[in-house]
Amino acid sequence: MTATDLFVDFLCPYAWRGVELAAVLRAQGETFRLRHFSLVQGNHPENAGQPEPRWWLTEQAAEEGTPYQRSSLAAFLAARAAAQQGEDAAWAYTLALFRARHEAGQPLDESSFSGAAQTAGLDLERWQAARADDDALRGSLREDLADAHRLGVFGTPTYVLPDGHAAYYRFEQLTRDPGVARERWNLYLSVLRSEAGIGTIKRTKPPVR
Amino acid sequence: MTATDLFVDFLCPYAWRGVELAAVLRAQGETFRLRHFSLVQGNHPENAGQPEPRWWLTEQAAEEGTPYQRSSLAAFLAARAAAQQGEDAAWAYTLALFRARHEAGQPLDESSFSGAAQTAGLDLERWQAARADDDALRGSLREDLADAHRLGVFGTPTYVLPDGHAAYYRFEQLTRDPGVARERWNLYLSVLRSEAGIGTIKRTKPPVR
Repeated sequence: MTATDLFVDFLCPYAWRGVELAAVLRAQGETFRLRHFSLVQGNHPENAGQPEPRWWLTEQAAEEGTPYQRSSLAAFLAARAAAQQGEDAAWAYTLALFRARHEAGQPLDESSFSGAAQTAGLDLERWQAARADDDALRGSLREDLADAHRLGVFGTPTYVLPDGHAAYYRFEQLTRDPGVARERWNLYLSVLRSEAGIGTIKRTKPPVR
Repeated sequence: MTATDLFVDFLCPYAWRGVELAAVLRAQGETFRLRHFSLVQGNHPENAGQPEPRWWLTEQAAEEGTPYQRSSLAAFLAARAAAQQGEDAAWAYTLALFRARHEAGQPLDESSFSGAAQTAGLDLERWQAARADDDALRGSLREDLADAHRLGVFGTPTYVLPDGHAAYYRFEQLTRDPGVARERWNLYLSVLRSEAGIGTIKRTKPPVR
């Protein structure tokens, strides 16, 4: 494994900023692989404390569950169909859909999915054909969800480094500046690789009154 | 406020390493103030989701509750009695008791409390007299617990910087090396003060099978 695996969920604004960070670093020659972790599955009460998930997002009907559940499943499948047109297409589609959701404030619906396909310059006919093979897309999504569980991913974005270090990295400020992105990434690497064996740095949050 | 407040609980091995870190930095001229946060209170089911705690450690009888609850309350009160002999005495006692518990593996009991008082070079008679004023010690402990709640402290060690930044800092490797401690502290400060607005860096932990 030479790439850093980046687990994301389109529901999550922190994942959006994490993908933007990785996109800037990718332009600098870092290698990232886009992967999917489902927050709805990860936080599902049936999965709490289970050694293996009992409830899988990939086993749910498209029209079932909460709006979060439905839209996150549809977004994952749309992105996986896009990824069949190559790695650059996968990144372009993922960025376009994250931006539609979290920058433009659009819902994760058919209009956003198609808009992202156009923004990303996909072969639209090929993308729609890939989307029709629901079983194949769900099968490959399930592999990501299983790997995320095995690795202990619990939130997005989570970066899994080639050396095995892995952590959730949550930050508030978007950057597309190459220097700032590099600094932010180096800080993350320093924390993970510190001789201290840092498990957590988590800011306090005063209770709401 | 010019000191960094350091919230600890004698139950916690991470707090121990955090106090050791602060002790090294203190010798380099940094200013820390030792404060108490109760893990038993913070994690108490009656307090979950409450804007104010309903269950206070300071309202529990000395002989009630789980062993964790009893020993943590007794340790807090013993340390507060020690602190009446000055700041250096507070540090010496706190380090001695943390080391007894987490380095030597002793329980938090009367034998450890007295042993720490001797190790710290306290005036033992004065310390025992201070311990007898249970109400006063509980009153001052409650102020720390109330401040910790107000600040959103949820674990130990938590450092609250003079500039208001505050976070839980959990690491596995003890250090008493001045250079390593300085590096570790600078890394923590860099994360908290980064323009990224970092909320969390938390390592993944594969599920137990």
